[in-house]
Amino acid sequence: MKKAVVLYSGGLDSTTCMAIARDQGFAAYALSFNYGQRHTVELEKAREYAPLIGAAEHMVVDVDMRQMGGSALTADIDVPKGTPTGNEIPVTYVPARNTIFLSFALGWAEVLGAADIFIGVNALDYSGYPDCRPEFIQAFQQMANLATKAGVEGRPYQIHAPLINLSKAQIIEQGLALGVDYRLTHSCYDPTPEGLSCGQCDSCRLRLKGFADANRVDPIHYVAD
Amino acid sequence: MKKAVVLYSGGLDSTTCMAIARDQGFAAYALSFNYGQRHTVELEKAREYAPLIGAAEHMVVDVDMRQMGGSALTADIDVPKGTPTGNEIPVTYVPARNTIFLSFALGWAEVLGAADIFIGVNALDYSGYPDCRPEFIQAFQQMANLATKAGVEGRPYQIHAPLINLSKAQIIEQGLALGVDYRLTHSCYDPTPEGLSCGQCDSCRLRLKGFADANRVDPIHYVAD
Repeated sequence: MKKAVVLYSGGLDSTTCMAIARDQGFAAYALSFNYGQRHTVELEKAREYAPLIGAAEHMVVDVDMRQMGGSALTADIDVPKGTPTGNEIPVTYVPARNTIFLSFALGWAEVLGAADIFIGVNALDYSGYPDCRPEFIQAFQQMANLATKAGVEGRPYQIHAPLINLSKAQIIEQGLALGVDYRLTHSCYDPTPEGLSCGQCDSCRLRLKGFADANRVDPIHYVAD
Repeated sequence: MKKAVVLYSGGLDSTTCMAIARDQGFAAYALSFNYGQRHTVELEKAREYAPLIGAAEHMVVDVDMRQMGGSALTADIDVPKGTPTGNEIPVTYVPARNTIFLSFALGWAEVLGAADIFIGVNALDYSGYPDCRPEFIQAFQQMANLATKAGVEGRPYQIHAPLINLSKAQIIEQGLALGVDYRLTHSCYDPTPEGLSCGQCDSCRLRLKGFADANRVDPIHYVAD
C-alpha cells in the first residue's frame, strides 16, 4: 500500500481529506501539531479520533508558535464572533502556518518514503487566508521537489488539496458518500472547557452553514443546543 | 532600521551571514531551533553568542524533529568520521530541515513586519544537501510570496543567501573583513561534553580546511590541541 502523509487537525475538512486519501488507496499517516493553539481540545479530539477514522499512524509534533505571536489563535487577541466579512485576512490567520505544517509533512514523507501529501485547505470558504489558495499549493510543490533528496533523485512529491475548490456543503456531501462520521470531527475555535462548540466563531458558522446548505443535520453538540 | 530575520545556529556560516546582514544596514533578528539535535552544545553557544555578535533579538523555537527520524544529527545513526565523499547526500542530512527553518523565519518575519530573511547556506562545501542550492532558495522565495499576507498585499519577501557561492575560505575572509570574532562560533557535529570540537566530523574538517585555505588559524579549541 502506498503511503501518504495527511495533515490532520481533527476537523471536518482534514477528516474528509483523510477519507479521500484512503479512498484513493493510500495508507494515511496523520500529522497533527501542538502549536500553542487556544483550542487544545482540538488536539485531544484528534488523538482520540485518528485511529477511529483509519489512520495507519498518528504523529503529533510539538512546535511552539506562541512565541511568534500575531494571531488570535495563538496570541492574546480575541477570537471574533459574528458574521465573517469574507474578503479581509482574518485575525485568526496564523502567519505561515500552512507553510510550516507542509514543511513538516514533507520531512516526514521523506523519512517514510511517501511521495504524496494531502492537505484539506479550501479556497472558497477561507478566501482570506493566502496559504489556502491553489497557487500557493502549486508553489509549495515546486519548492518541495527542489528541497529534498527524493525530489532531486527524480521521485517527485505531489501535494494533494482535494477540497480546494469545494464548498463546505460539497465537502460534507463527499465525506458522507465516503462514510465519514462527522460526530468524529471538531471545528470550533473557541470551545467551552467541556468541549461544546460555541456556534458563533467563523469556523462554527461555516460548518453550520455547510450542513444547512447540504440539507443535513450537524451531529455534534453546540452550547445553544 | 529595517528588520531582517537571520537563521542562526551559532556556527561559522550563520554568524558570518549575520555580520553581512548587519553590514547591509539591517537590525538582525536571530532565529535558532531546538530540534533535537545531538549537538545541543551548539544551542547553548548560540544563546551565549547571539547578543555578543549584535543580534537585536534572539528567538529559540522548540520543535521536535527526532520523532521524524531519518538523520544522523537527530536519530540513532553514527555521525560519520573521515573524508567526505562530496557527491552523495550525507547521513547528516535532516529531511526538509531548511524548508522547516525558513518557514518559521517567514512566520516571524511576517509578525515583525520584516521583508528580508537571511540564511547562511552554501552550495559549494555542502553540495550533497539539496536544500542548500540556489534553485531551492529561489523556489522558496516564490512560494513565500504566495503564502503570506505581506506577499499577497505587494510587499514581497527576499530570501538572502549571501554565502551560497562562496568557498569556506572566502566566507572566513569575508567574515574577518567585517570584524567577526570566530572564537564566538561553533561548528562540530559531535563535540565532547566539555564543548571541545572533535576535529574529525564533516563540519570540523570543512571548517579546518577553510581556515587552512585562507591561511588563517582557527581560534577555537579541538580535542587534539
